[in-house]
Amino acid sequence: MNFKLVLRITGLSLFIEAGAMLVPMAVALIYGESPIPFLCSILLVLAAASVPVFLFRPKTDFFAREGFFTVGLIWVLFGVFGALPFWFSGQFGPYIDCLFETISGFTTTGATILTAIEGLPMGLLFWRSFTHWLGGMGVLILTAALLPFLGISSNFLIRAESPGPVKSKLVPRASQSSKILYAIYLSLTVLEVLLLRVAGMDWYDAVTHAMSTAGTGGFSGRNSSVGSFGSPAIEIIITVFMLLFSVNFSVYFLILTGKLRQALKSDELRFFVIMVALSVAAIAWNLRSIYDGVGECVRYAAFQVASIVSTTGFASANYDLWPEFSRMLLVVLTFIGACAGSTGGGIKCGRILILIRSARREVRSIIHPRAVSVVRLDGAPVAENVIGTAQCYFIISLFLVFAAAIVVGLDNFSFGTTLTAVITCISNVGPGLEMVGPAGNFSQFSVLSKLVLSFMMILGRLEMYPILVLFSGSAWKRS
Amino acid sequence: MNFKLVLRITGLSLFIEAGAMLVPMAVALIYGESPIPFLCSILLVLAAASVPVFLFRPKTDFFAREGFFTVGLIWVLFGVFGALPFWFSGQFGPYIDCLFETISGFTTTGATILTAIEGLPMGLLFWRSFTHWLGGMGVLILTAALLPFLGISSNFLIRAESPGPVKSKLVPRASQSSKILYAIYLSLTVLEVLLLRVAGMDWYDAVTHAMSTAGTGGFSGRNSSVGSFGSPAIEIIITVFMLLFSVNFSVYFLILTGKLRQALKSDELRFFVIMVALSVAAIAWNLRSIYDGVGECVRYAAFQVASIVSTTGFASANYDLWPEFSRMLLVVLTFIGACAGSTGGGIKCGRILILIRSARREVRSIIHPRAVSVVRLDGAPVAENVIGTAQCYFIISLFLVFAAAIVVGLDNFSFGTTLTAVITCISNVGPGLEMVGPAGNFSQFSVLSKLVLSFMMILGRLEMYPILVLFSGSAWKRS
Repeated sequence: MNFKLVLRITGLSLFIEAGAMLVPMAVALIYGESPIPFLCSILLVLAAASVPVFLFRPKTDFFAREGFFTVGLIWVLFGVFGALPFWFSGQFGPYIDCLFETISGFTTTGATILTAIEGLPMGLLFWRSFTHWLGGMGVLILTAALLPFLGISSNFLIRAESPGPVKSKLVPRASQSSKILYAIYLSLTVLEVLLLRVAGMDWYDAVTHAMSTAGTGGFSGRNSSVGSFGSPAIEIIITVFMLLFSVNFSVYFLILTGKLRQALKSDELRFFVIMVALSVAAIAWNLRSIYDGVGECVRYAAFQVASIVSTTGFASANYDLWPEFSRMLLVVLTFIGACAGSTGGGIKCGRILILIRSARREVRSIIHPRAVSVVRLDGAPVAENVIGTAQCYFIISLFLVFAAAIVVGLDNFSFGTTLTAVITCISNVGPGLEMVGPAGNFSQFSVLSKLVLSFMMILGRLEMYPILVLFSGSAWKRS
Repeated sequence: MNFKLVLRITGLSLFIEAGAMLVPMAVALIYGESPIPFLCSILLVLAAASVPVFLFRPKTDFFAREGFFTVGLIWVLFGVFGALPFWFSGQFGPYIDCLFETISGFTTTGATILTAIEGLPMGLLFWRSFTHWLGGMGVLILTAALLPFLGISSNFLIRAESPGPVKSKLVPRASQSSKILYAIYLSLTVLEVLLLRVAGMDWYDAVTHAMSTAGTGGFSGRNSSVGSFGSPAIEIIITVFMLLFSVNFSVYFLILTGKLRQALKSDELRFFVIMVALSVAAIAWNLRSIYDGVGECVRYAAFQVASIVSTTGFASANYDLWPEFSRMLLVVLTFIGACAGSTGGGIKCGRILILIRSARREVRSIIHPRAVSVVRLDGAPVAENVIGTAQCYFIISLFLVFAAAIVVGLDNFSFGTTLTAVITCISNVGPGLEMVGPAGNFSQFSVLSKLVLSFMMILGRLEMYPILVLFSGSAWKRS
């Protein structure tokens, strides 16, 4: 393992984080708040990052394991240093809470330890949503742009970073494709800001909520999340954008290059659309005795389904009080998540589709043991090793959920709280049920549970394998 | 599909069920109770079974699909007809409750709809435990003995029936191996009856509890299950026998033939022993503030762990009141279950072991993509299609749990009740948490939920594939 190079790249990334902190500091100044928490944090980050950047002159050997280790380290350190402004402010509780909140931000989870959000400094709440936005497309896809300057292919970082099983490269060169994704991401965010402003939000709320939507994060500056605005227009705009950010971004690339028909042929997209439509219909029906009229039922159902499948985690109502059918369906959707290649988390629809089709093949093979059949996606056969990887992804996810739930169980909260806390963190959704429902928060968990849940968030966000590799002995052997 | 033959075999099996009902009828007579519910049921079963047996002269074409269909049909019809004595007695509620109770019996689940058990007729409670015993080794392994008389190989039935991924045939001929398994099963049951009698149970309790243990079912004639006897000796005996019945029976065969060393080398057995030991230790530690002294903590923990991993479902205490760590661990153990080739249910330790090893291989392959490695079990490589089948088994199980939990959610019970009800049924354990905890029951569920949960029990007991095949169109095509 080329530690010096790993640390140097990590250091360079931290410079970006320090630069990013200038934005919330400016916001703090605009609203007449103290810039000190940010200033101190920036200086500390710069000091820490300078050591590897200016002292190390590493060799340029950079293999998969270095890439994975770099990615993991950067996400952890972005959390560790990004938590400083919260900590210095003294308004976010002990350091572990600040760390949990920041990892929740950068992993675009949106699980919070805050018991009362309104009234906190605007600069800090801006930073909170900004971490979502930065995390959304992957802090590393920005960082990857730096790698060519180091004379290193950024391929491995892209592989570790870009979410989902379907690695349909947009254009041959990684740094170029990251620019295109970034442009789409930025454009959609700006569009959402404008629409939210038109719908009646002030600029601050519009920007923070658009950033939280774009990253499919879910931090809101309001205690009752999006529901507190009491505006159907705002809810509908956010519903649409949550869904837009949960679609594979290559769809937009295809649309931009005039290949609309090819874009709409995506099996994963169809599966996603059907799943969302059926879930909205089922939940709207289930809510018929709670809200007035079909329109209102559909609006609440659509918002919450979009929020959960996109793994954003906003709430327009306290769905923890909804009937069990809706709650259970939302928990299952938490697990499934968004499309591959989006900013959303979860197992991903593409993987679920591969799993369903391979399971169907397995059942058929019992009757026709000698028949050879392939699993197809978008008309093309899926390689057996891709199927195997997807199957293991699902299985390992569940093993990790079971293991984490047992550990978090030590805190002795209810079964629903414990299990959904773990599921919502590994899927990067944010809220779960009961104590961690949309009206609740994660503040009461022990330090151990907060660390375990933070680890789940990073595992989920980085699609597990890059982190799991680091726990396998073979990653550390000299080659 | 050769329906006539399927129905004829099913009819012959129902004759066995009618014969089996003579036993609880005798018990009813001994205790001075009315034999009428049994008499009417026997006559009805005989009448129904006679139609296909005496009218059909089928061809002897018998393929895998016929085998699977027969197995599924027999389990359903054993439930449908076995429920009659309960229904005729008028003391078990509406027919759907009687059906649920009987399917729970024959699938060795032990989930009950009874709110008060003590005081019910002895004959009926005997029948309830007897269904466990019959179901335990598989009603079909008895029925399989009939097949040679029809001039048909019973191989397919054995394949559908014998639980678990490891089909280590004991002896070449299926009917001979079923006799050996049956002898082991009977001997262990008799031994347990004697030990329970010596420990202070009366003959009736000893026999019914031994039958419920042998089938890893869990029906008890007492409201507070085994805990109501208040006897550490009885609890320890049952703990040991629950574990004995969760071990792959081929281990006993190897021990009987002097191959002790080979028996102890089983990876699955080692995994099972370690898992049980660690779980007992962890739960005993977690219970330290609830019970007095290490001995008592270990005794309660050992009983409950053995009860859950064996998928029996007896309780020596209301573990639903234990701390969340213990409850969550027990739910995870519910999912894992016993060893393959035992009377227990669940995913099975052998499969879990294959899944863990294939997941580890998957993670390693990211660092060494070109390295070819095999998954080993007991030193021998596991075929890739066996790994694939185990992976799909786990994945399909979870998909079914999710789907069933959403449907059962319509009843609007708590998250913990809903989810653990489904898990405990597909794993054939019996009790779950909260409303379906050891002090609760399944009586309040709707008819739809009871049907869904009954279906889960049958799916779990028959290792899913034989039933799932029937839902795949290709099973019904003419060959």
